[in-house]
Formats: sequence, structure tokens, C-alpha cells
Amino acid sequence: MKNPEPKPITTIGEKLGISPDDLIPYGKFIAKVPYRKLLELKDKPDGKLVLVTAMNPTPAGEGKTTTSIGLSMAFNRLGINSIVTLREPSLGPVMGVKGGATGGGNAQILPMEEINLHFTGDIHAVTSAHNLLSAMLDAALKFSSVDIDPTKIIWPRAMDMNDRALRHIVVGLGGSANGVPREDGFVISAASEVMAILCLARDLKDLKERLSRIIVAYSKKKNPITAGDLKAHGAMAVLLKDAMNPNLVQTIENTPVFVHGGPFANIAHGTNSVIATRLALKLSDVVVTEAGFGADLGGEKFLDFVSRVGGFNVNGVVLVASLKALKYHGGVKKDELDIENLEAIE
Amino acid sequence: MKNPEPKPITTIGEKLGISPDDLIPYGKFIAKVPYRKLLELKDKPDGKLVLVTAMNPTPAGEGKTTTSIGLSMAFNRLGINSIVTLREPSLGPVMGVKGGATGGGNAQILPMEEINLHFTGDIHAVTSAHNLLSAMLDAALKFSSVDIDPTKIIWPRAMDMNDRALRHIVVGLGGSANGVPREDGFVISAASEVMAILCLARDLKDLKERLSRIIVAYSKKKNPITAGDLKAHGAMAVLLKDAMNPNLVQTIENTPVFVHGGPFANIAHGTNSVIATRLALKLSDVVVTEAGFGADLGGEKFLDFVSRVGGFNVNGVVLVASLKALKYHGGVKKDELDIENLEAIE
Amino acid sequence: MKNPEPKPITTIGEKLGISPDDLIPYGKFIAKVPYRKLLELKDKPDGKLVLVTAMNPTPAGEGKTTTSIGLSMAFNRLGINSIVTLREPSLGPVMGVKGGATGGGNAQILPMEEINLHFTGDIHAVTSAHNLLSAMLDAALKFSSVDIDPTKIIWPRAMDMNDRALRHIVVGLGGSANGVPREDGFVISAASEVMAILCLARDLKDLKERLSRIIVAYSKKKNPITAGDLKAHGAMAVLLKDAMNPNLVQTIENTPVFVHGGPFANIAHGTNSVIATRLALKLSDVVVTEAGFGADLGGEKFLDFVSRVGGFNVNGVVLVASLKALKYHGGVKKDELDIENLEAIE
Amino acid sequence: MKNPEPKPITTIGEKLGISPDDLIPYGKFIAKVPYRKLLELKDKPDGKLVLVTAMNPTPAGEGKTTTSIGLSMAFNRLGINSIVTLREPSLGPVMGVKGGATGGGNAQILPMEEINLHFTGDIHAVTSAHNLLSAMLDAALKFSSVDIDPTKIIWPRAMDMNDRALRHIVVGLGGSANGVPREDGFVISAASEVMAILCLARDLKDLKERLSRIIVAYSKKKNPITAGDLKAHGAMAVLLKDAMNPNLVQTIENTPVFVHGGPFANIAHGTNSVIATRLALKLSDVVVTEAGFGADLGGEKFLDFVSRVGGFNVNGVVLVASLKALKYHGGVKKDELDIENLEAIE
Repeated sequence: MKNPEPKPITTIGEKLGISPDDLIPYGKFIAKVPYRKLLELKDKPDGKLVLVTAMNPTPAGEGKTTTSIGLSMAFNRLGINSIVTLREPSLGPVMGVKGGATGGGNAQILPMEEINLHFTGDIHAVTSAHNLLSAMLDAALKFSSVDIDPTKIIWPRAMDMNDRALRHIVVGLGGSANGVPREDGFVISAASEVMAILCLARDLKDLKERLSRIIVAYSKKKNPITAGDLKAHGAMAVLLKDAMNPNLVQTIENTPVFVHGGPFANIAHGTNSVIATRLALKLSDVVVTEAGFGADLGGEKFLDFVSRVGGFNVNGVVLVASLKALKYHGGVKKDELDIENLEAIE
Repeated sequence: MKNPEPKPITTIGEKLGISPDDLIPYGKFIAKVPYRKLLELKDKPDGKLVLVTAMNPTPAGEGKTTTSIGLSMAFNRLGINSIVTLREPSLGPVMGVKGGATGGGNAQILPMEEINLHFTGDIHAVTSAHNLLSAMLDAALKFSSVDIDPTKIIWPRAMDMNDRALRHIVVGLGGSANGVPREDGFVISAASEVMAILCLARDLKDLKERLSRIIVAYSKKKNPITAGDLKAHGAMAVLLKDAMNPNLVQTIENTPVFVHGGPFANIAHGTNSVIATRLALKLSDVVVTEAGFGADLGGEKFLDFVSRVGGFNVNGVVLVASLKALKYHGGVKKDELDIENLEAIE
Repeated sequence: MKNPEPKPITTIGEKLGISPDDLIPYGKFIAKVPYRKLLELKDKPDGKLVLVTAMNPTPAGEGKTTTSIGLSMAFNRLGINSIVTLREPSLGPVMGVKGGATGGGNAQILPMEEINLHFTGDIHAVTSAHNLLSAMLDAALKFSSVDIDPTKIIWPRAMDMNDRALRHIVVGLGGSANGVPREDGFVISAASEVMAILCLARDLKDLKERLSRIIVAYSKKKNPITAGDLKAHGAMAVLLKDAMNPNLVQTIENTPVFVHGGPFANIAHGTNSVIATRLALKLSDVVVTEAGFGADLGGEKFLDFVSRVGGFNVNGVVLVASLKALKYHGGVKKDELDIENLEAIE
Repeated sequence: MKNPEPKPITTIGEKLGISPDDLIPYGKFIAKVPYRKLLELKDKPDGKLVLVTAMNPTPAGEGKTTTSIGLSMAFNRLGINSIVTLREPSLGPVMGVKGGATGGGNAQILPMEEINLHFTGDIHAVTSAHNLLSAMLDAALKFSSVDIDPTKIIWPRAMDMNDRALRHIVVGLGGSANGVPREDGFVISAASEVMAILCLARDLKDLKERLSRIIVAYSKKKNPITAGDLKAHGAMAVLLKDAMNPNLVQTIENTPVFVHGGPFANIAHGTNSVIATRLALKLSDVVVTEAGFGADLGGEKFLDFVSRVGGFNVNGVVLVASLKALKYHGGVKKDELDIENLEAIE
């Protein structure tokens, strides 16, 4: 399929019953839907929820995202209103490997480049909120009377970049004016606890409370020190205010998509924001959503934990098993996965 | 003046002769104007340019921004079409000191909070482009055959945060998998050379060329190594593509404002983007713009350098001299500047 | 026993058939015996060798050193000429815990304080030789054309001090004049490979060859880089020249003792120098020597490795098993080891 | 003069009226004289003191040491008993540049190699005492309740090695078990304040008191923290006990020499120990001593400060001015100093 033409995002919104005045546009083809919309719709019954997960992941990719997009488009073709909800791509992997997280083939979402780059700034906001807490922590270590053990600080810094030179660093050097020396490191923003919290929070109040409970360090007496102790959670919530609103885009068949939040599945729960899924359940008959990594990791986490926090039930599960992935687990090398090999699959 | 009501940004655009279709909205009250608009208007004669500068800066502030905004509003009241062009505020100072860079009293621009926080993501884009170059530099130091002296790297990392603990750091620690150990440091994004370049570039091609000429390090043979040598400039330009477009907002009297680019005046040229000023000159009769720091720093740089790069002439200069600033330079302490003191002014 | 009176070291030497002119005195009660003495005595048959080892070590100490000293004194009382050979104590543990390595009760060696402090400077010499190699390695990293991967340097620095703050450090900071930044760390001198080599070398030539084979780092092409590649072994051997000569002292019963070399048993072979043991075998009928840690570590290493390098046979083994140690391994706490507890021993 | 033959150090001692029993030998040709000898001789009148200093130092060397040695030998030839007192050479410069500090030509001291290498271990003892204080400081920072600002620690570590990679380091890395991260650096042992103190102390009590007054850091409340506060001075004094005793050697004409203590002249007082000079004044008619650097630095310090602390008067000053040094200051390059050049000297 060549040159897919996106429709104005207001058109997509209207199909969902959202008036243009309720959308916050970011260019012509992207809009945020204020999460407060959930309140208006709270008495509307939820649609059905289909979870897409997969067998053990492989370097070749198993196709969860394309399956999710395609499945949702299929529902729409069948006349069943469906929204697919997906995670936001990290900039880091985007710059490293061609592709990003916008699907492939005939199962893509638009506008691809914008989604893969800065999008609506959610990940920038997560990064800023994360690093504000880091800066306030180092300022407290230097100036406040809070008892913080500089060797027991567990809150890293964050950057939306694959930058191995920042994994393990020493900060606070350069003499007395520059803070207190200590070991530190950057995580990629998708691995930030702020990202995980953003994707679990029900509303701004819940967000702020969850932020305040982040443990950032331990005192010399081994007591935990939280973001709340440093009075950082309020300013962090201000920085995350807009990022709470789900991002609406469309597939190449102009069906609606929420792309919102992107925590990693290995260290967090690996699925898009609870708010986006909840809103989608109010706005359509069937919501297709995806959990990162394999069924035993992202899938389990979704069923055991995310669905409970979100207050929704999973009505169906799709488990993606590709021939390539079967071959890979059967011992075939990555660059030979395209060759037919029945033995490896058995 | 209470509760100023902004008009839809499309209304402001239409006053300037820009159709809604040509605007890229970021919410209801902010829009980017594609810089390519300059091409369409290239045969239109420029308006007049008024530069607002000031006596030596003081902690009390002299009032350059409020003077600029007020002056432009006054022109509009007089029936003379005027745009004021300003710098984007840094997040760091915003979180530190209340206020930001949106003026004060009756000389404010709207929407204040959005402008002072993430706005249209320009500074996030500058930060990302800056740090992409940093990451590619460390990757080259680790993996490439480019001869880079690890003790002669002059390209720092950047963050839009006042974070003194990051001023002087050691990166690349944690063993062989994590890069090459070296001394490094973060600058605030407004002090990044990428910000300066963004504000001087005429178009994407010029931007890319300027980026490619950034000197990031020296080889052991003392030869300069550039962003172009590391093949980083292309990806950096992609990250900066949207940030090239000026941001249109409005004053509380609904007169048009461009807020675009925010380099520091002490280490760079301290004024908004050349593209924003050039576009404003095509779209209005009188453009009021502001140069950071005092007349001898930002003012000089504007007259000697920025106006030449931008290809425009300064038709008038306003030099702000406040009583507070005069008193301060007369030796009065910061917290006594509000008291009448004729002697200190003489 | 109170106020043991040491005899002049020349008297002890004469008992062994060494004339005062052949001794190198360090004060009145300590002397080095030139290791070249071995050549003169090479046709004299060796005495018998008794190895003292122990069950698994415990914090209470098992008593290997006092057993070794006492056993050798007993041989002498029985009219059988005997020398006990022991390791030199590290300064670090000495400053930390009272006692040192000069025995206890009636099984002590003299002069205690001198032996436990600087003694004849052997450990200082090991430290100097070790750190000369470190300095030459960093100089090569900075100035030479030898291909050294700064993240694959395995040669630490050394200090005769228990100093945990030096275990993991970053060196080469402070800008281009101060070397190349890299991760490093100090080991205690007794854990230096130089100490192990000093204790295995047969003569200066062998010492120099062994030093030249030390692997200090790997190149970016993963080839090993040796002290010989850096041309450091010659100067190291000069620094170790005097340290090659065994140190002669006496027990409180004025029987002869060689205290020479002190490698750790866990990371090296944990016994005194091969030269001291060989010389003792030429000078007496029964040599008692001690191997560090338990029978399964220091004992095994002595039998499998040290005795082969040294060219001597072990004629008898004493295995020390104390009630305290048995109780400790039976689960009794350290501060209750003095209490009778038959159950714990079963 | 070829193959100078040193006499036994006991012979040199006897010429000074010191019995062999009062000497502490380090091999055949070096001995320490117990500084308590000063008490026995306290009623004996002092000899005369001649200070050798020089014009501004140059890379070529001016010849202060050879002049001092030669002058003292000349006094002895004339039948006037004379001792020359000199500083101990650092190992660092010795390994770097051939030569050391034992004179040259016919004005040498013996045994050259031993003096230039470990000698009697004084510098090792200074290094150990220095680093013991460093280790106790870091232990206090980690474990004690003493309020120490980790960014206001001014006590470095020390090594007797020219090792530029250790000039600026970060210590205490590797996690909570390894201390508190902070910036640090090594100085060469000759630049240690411990060396300066050793050379100024009158006796062990004075040494201990001076050590206790060393300021090592400041508290967060900006109060100084001393070695005494850390209870380190006692153990330091124990390590320095033997180093307090002057080292007796001889010239190639077998006249007596004290080589004792070696502080740098630029950062300390640059002359041998006060104890050695005082003892020499009791033991001979004319003592020749040398002050490091030029007359305006080491010379001034000797006259204004060292002689007052030591309680002795300078009876004569020799100022060395060489043609080479005059030429160098006249602008002649280092490698052309051997060429006759009258113009440069004028």
C-alpha cells in the first residue's frame, strides 16, 4: 500500500463522538484527548478488551504490534467499532534501529515520523519530571539537613537516548560549588519509574500521590527517603500534566489509535497507559491492546496487575507465534530465519 | 487587568494573513508557522525593526521584556501592525524562580503556563539533538577508528535543568561494556551551541551545514573533529526539523507574538531566531525585538552580528534604564531598591 | 615469660655458620643474608622440611604461626638444628588489629615491633616496584604508541594499607596534562603479583624474567600487554634487589628465624619466599614452614606448586586443629569460643 | 677519581666520637644515629654553620650540592672537622632522571645507589604515615559522627613516585562498602606536610604535637578538622619513630655526611632535618648545609624560619653562581649552555 492519506484528526475524533473543541491538536493529524473525558463517560458501559501477547521474544520480532493494528482494522472493516491502544516509541531505539513502533506493511499507524520523533512531548515530559527529582535530590544532599547517605541513592537520572557512556557515571565533581560527589547513572526514559507511574495513574491526584511515594535514597540510618520528603512531587506533576492526556492518531485505514505511554516490559509493566485503555473502552466496542515481551512477562503482568489497577477485564487473548520465532528458538541463526526449515520448528 | 482572554490562535494568524491551514497548532492558543512561509513572502518589503536593549543588567531586572511587549501593543493600538519577537524561556530558571519569560503586569503574553513549560518542544528538540551528538561521539571513541583524544573532548552534554551536580562529571565508567571513561559535564540547553545554531540558520540546509561544522573534539594529532566527521549532523537536523518553525502566540491585548529560540546572551548571541525576526518583518509594519543582557553585550552582538547574518537593518533602538537598576549600580542593596533614593541615582 | 632478651643477630648468624661480614645488618637484631649464599652451599644436602597447615581458618585464629615457632624451638631444645621460616606481616593489618605476625605467648619472634612495622623495607620495595609499573603503564597510555585499551587494564596500584576508599577509583582526571581517565583501584601490597613473584624467584635473573611476563592490560585487538612490553621489568628488579635477600631474626629462645616475603594465600600461594626456605634447608637439619589459610588452600598450593618451583620435598605435615576452630565450625559464636562446649565439637 | 672505597660506617662514626654501639647500621656503609644523642651533647658548644644557596635555579643545575660536598671535604683536608648535611633524594625523580642527589664528579657521597633507592626507609615511613592519616580520614567520613564536608577535604594521599595519573582522582567508588566518593589526588612524598614536619620536629613529643595540628578538612560548619581530631597522630608518630634519626654516610674522601629528610623548597622549607643540622653542629667544627631552589626561596626560608625553629645561627653563606646559569638567564637555550657566550653573561 502506497502513500496512505491520513484524515484530519478532528474527523477521527468525530467518529468517536469527540467534538473538535474537546481535542487538543498537535499539528493536523495528532491530538490529545483530555483524560477528564473519562468522567463524562463514566456511566457508559465498557467495550470488550483483547490482549495481544506473544511467545518468547526474538531479535526478529514476533509481530505483536502489526497483529494488534491489523486486528483492530479488521474489526472496523467488519463494522465493529474498535480502537487499538499502543505504547509510545522511545527516541533511543528509533535513532538506533530503523522502524520504530508504528507497525509495518499494511498494518501501520500515521503520521509515522512524528510519532517516532517528538510526538506530543510525553517522553520529554517524563524525562524532565524524572530529572527534576534528581536535581532536587542532589540539591538536598548538598544544602538540606535531610540525612541522605550518598552511597545509598537509588534514583538515577534519565535520558531518552541509548547512551552507554552515561550508564555509570560520577557526578558532583569540580569542587565545593558543584554538589556532592557520588556514583550515578542514566536510564533510558522508558525505564524511568515516572513512566511507569504515568501509565498507572488514574488522574492527576493519583499521579501526584504515586510520585510522592517514589523511594529515591536511604538515610544513614537506613530509612527510605521519598520524593515526597523532598517536596518534589508537586512540581513533577505540573510537568506531567499534559502528558496525562492520551494521544489520538489513526491507522492507514483511518481507524482510531491511542498511542500513550511507553514503559519497558522487563523492568516495568510494558503496556500503554491505563487511562488510554480505559478511555478506549468507553469510546469503542472492542479495544485491542498489546503487552510487551512474551506472554510470561508482559502478558502475565497485564493480567495479574495492570488490569486490576485499571479496573478492566480481558475478554480475549491473542498469542502471536511466528515461524521465524519458532525457528530462532529451534536454534536457527538470525540471518537464516527467512529460509524454510521444518526441522527447526518441530 | 484580570483574566485576559486569549483568542484562538487561528484568529491571530488570520490577522497576519496566514490561513488556518498554514498553521500547525499546538493546542488552541499556540501554533507554529512553517518557516517556508518566508519563501512565499520573499518579495514583500520588510517592516521596520526596533531593538530593545538595556543598561547593565541587575538582579532586579530592568524590564526589557515588558518594554518590548508594551511597545508592540502600543504600536498596534496606534493602528500600526506590529509583532514582538521574544526568546523561549528555559525550563531550568522557570522551576527555580517564579515568573519565567512571559512579561509582567499589563505587558504579558499568553498562554503563560504552556509557554513556560514544554511549549512546542523546541528546547526538548535542541536537547535531544545535542545529546545525540554526544552519544555518537562517545560511541565513536569506543568503537570507531576515528582518532579522538579522550582528554580533548570539548562537546558537553545538555539538559534543560539547573543541575549543578551535572556540571562536572566522569562518564563511561562501569567497565569495558560501558564506553571509555572521560571527564564531561552538562550545560543548560539554552547554552548549547545547537540552540545558537538553530537561531542563526536560514533554512534546513543551512542548519545542517552549520551543525556539521561544530567542533566536538581534537585528535591526538591536534586536528579538530566535527559533527560532520561523525556523520551526526543529518540525524540532528531531523530532530530539529519542527523546531525551525517560529511559534506564534499573542499578548493579553491579542496582538501577535513570535516566541522562538532562546540562546543565552553571555555565551551566545542572546536573541530569538533569525527566522522568527525575518518572518515578522514580512508580516508586519514594525517588529519589536529584544536582545539579552546589556547594550554592550546582547545589544552589540545584535547590531554587529545577528542583523548581518539575518540580513535585516535595525531602524530604532530603545535602551531601557530603570530607576531600580540605576540605584543598584549606585550601590543600593537589592532589597532596598523600592525605597526612593535620589542620591544613589546621581 | 617476661622481657625476652634478643642476642645480637651476628650471634644467631654465627650459629648458622654465617660470618658477620656476610650479614647485612638492619639495626642490631635484624640482618639480611645475601641470597647468593645459596650458591656457596649448593652442594650441601638439604635438611628436612615440615609444613604446618591447618583446618579451615576462623576469626579466632587456629595457631599455625605459634605452632610453627614452637615446633622449631622444640627441635632446637632437642638438639636438632632447626630454622622456622615465616611470612612478613603487612602494615595494613598491623595498624588495624593488635598483634601482627610475630606469634604469641611463649612462641614469639623478636624484635616484634620492628618486624611488624617497616622491618627491612621489603614490602615498601614491593609497593614501589608495583607502582612504578602502574605509572609506566599510565604514561604509555598517554604518550606511547602502544595500543592499550583503557577499559582493559588489569594491573591495579598497590599500597601497604587497609584503605577501602582506594579499592575502586578513577584516575587520570584534571584535564589533558594529567593522563588518561580510567577506572583503577589499589590492592594491599601483600596481594600484589610482584609479592608473589618475589617469593617464587630463584635469583635476580629469574625475578626479572618473571616480572617481564606480568600481563598488565589488553590492546584494543585483545592482545596481552606485558611489563616487558613497557620495558618496566629492569627498573622493577633494581627496586627489588635488596628485597630478594632473606631476613634473619630470632625466637625468644634465640633460635634462628627467616621472615621473608608475604603473599596472601587466597589470591597467591601464601607462604614465605622460596629463597628463604631453600636457604634454611641448607643451613639447618629441620626447617619448619607455614602455609596460609587452610590445608585445602595454602596447604595444597604448597604441595602442588611451591615445593615444585622451589625444588624441595615436604617430609612431614602438621595439621593444626584447635578446639576454638572446631567450635566455630560447629556453630558457636566468636565471643563464646572460650566456653566449654562439647556438643559443638562432635 | 675511580672506584672510591667507602670505609665501614663504624669508622666514620668513631671519627665523630660515636661508638659502634650507638650506631644503628643499615648495611655496612649506612647508619642511623639515634637523635637522643643530642641530649648527651647538649652542653657542648655548637660549631659554625655555612649555608650554601644559589642564584635562580635553572634546568642545568647550579651545583649547590657539589659545592656543599666539596666545601666540607676541603675543610676536612685543611684539618677542620666538618660535616655536610644534605636532603634525601626522592625515588620519583631518581627513576625519571639519572643522577639523584648524591653529587657528581669528585664531590660525591657514598654508597650512591643505596642512598638513591630505599636508603634507610625514611621516605617510605613518611609515605606510610601520610597515607595512614588519609585512610583514617576516609574511614571517619564513612563511619564516624565527625562532621566532615566531603568537598572540603584538603589532605591528599602521597606516593614516592612521579605519577601524573594520580594527581587528580576520585576515590570511594564501587558502592556503599567502599567508602564515600570524593575528589582526591596524590602528591609526591617529598611534598607531604609530614615530610616538612619530620624535618622541623625537635623530638618525638614535638613531632607528635605538630602532627596533631595538621588540618585535613573542614566541617560543613566550616570548622577545621585536624589529625588530632581523628586521633591519627599517635600511630603516625609510631611509623615515623625510626625516621627521626639522622642517616650517616660519607663522601668519597670519607668525610662524614648526614643525609636526612627531603622536603621540597617550593612548597615547604627545602632543607634537611633540623635534627641532623643540630646534631652535626654538636659533632663538628664547621657544618655545611644546603637550601633548595634559589637564595630568594630556600635561602630566605632557611634564614627567616628554619634557623629560628632549629635554634642555630648561620655564620656564613655561599651563593653559587654558575656560568651556565648566568647564560641561561641571559637567554641561551639549555642545549647551548656549554658553548662560550660572553654576551649572554653581561
